[in-house]
Amino acid sequence: MSQFENVTVVKEANVYFDGKVTSRAVLFADGTKKTLGIMLPGDYEFGTDCIEIMEILAGDLKVLLPGETEWVHIQGKGEFTVPANTKFKLQVAAVSDYCCSYIYE
Amino acid sequence: MSQFENVTVVKEANVYFDGKVTSRAVLFADGTKKTLGIMLPGDYEFGTDCIEIMEILAGDLKVLLPGETEWVHIQGKGEFTVPANTKFKLQVAAVSDYCCSYIYE
Repeated sequence: MSQFENVTVVKEANVYFDGKVTSRAVLFADGTKKTLGIMLPGDYEFGTDCIEIMEILAGDLKVLLPGETEWVHIQGKGEFTVPANTKFKLQVAAVSDYCCSYIYE
Repeated sequence: MSQFENVTVVKEANVYFDGKVTSRAVLFADGTKKTLGIMLPGDYEFGTDCIEIMEILAGDLKVLLPGETEWVHIQGKGEFTVPANTKFKLQVAAVSDYCCSYIYE
């Protein structure tokens, strides 16, 4: 069972797409931030302010990264990185659990 | 913005009812545990192993506590306590954000 120790958790959730995507922020002592979230089945588009490393902990989804024409299929666990100031699309086929790391350069 | 500091967060989510109810565990230095969760609209029944204090951070739901015949309506914020080793029912009308505290006596 993986866990983050000595962190701060923001109590209130972030809610998107009528609750089909929700997350909570985890703040680390070094000033970095991650969110732990859940995506229910559906099609979504997200924008990034910084580099985002999306770790899929469990689920089934396809991702279309910016500038790409091929969807990448992740079943179970996986990871992809999204550049800053871009948009990416997701087709979520089954409830997906994720951890997103925000990288400011 | 309320937050929990110096805590441990379990990375993987708890997923119930096909993802319509999800939560993540937050572990405190004193050995106590809370979960932060989201409930999407639907009807649910939950069982308790210990006393549970359910703080509704945002949402719209009705709760039927064990032994009661009247549903209690919470819109926005609210709180209710469920005895150990019982069941309670929820009718969730809108996406609801909650914090559940587990009290072992």
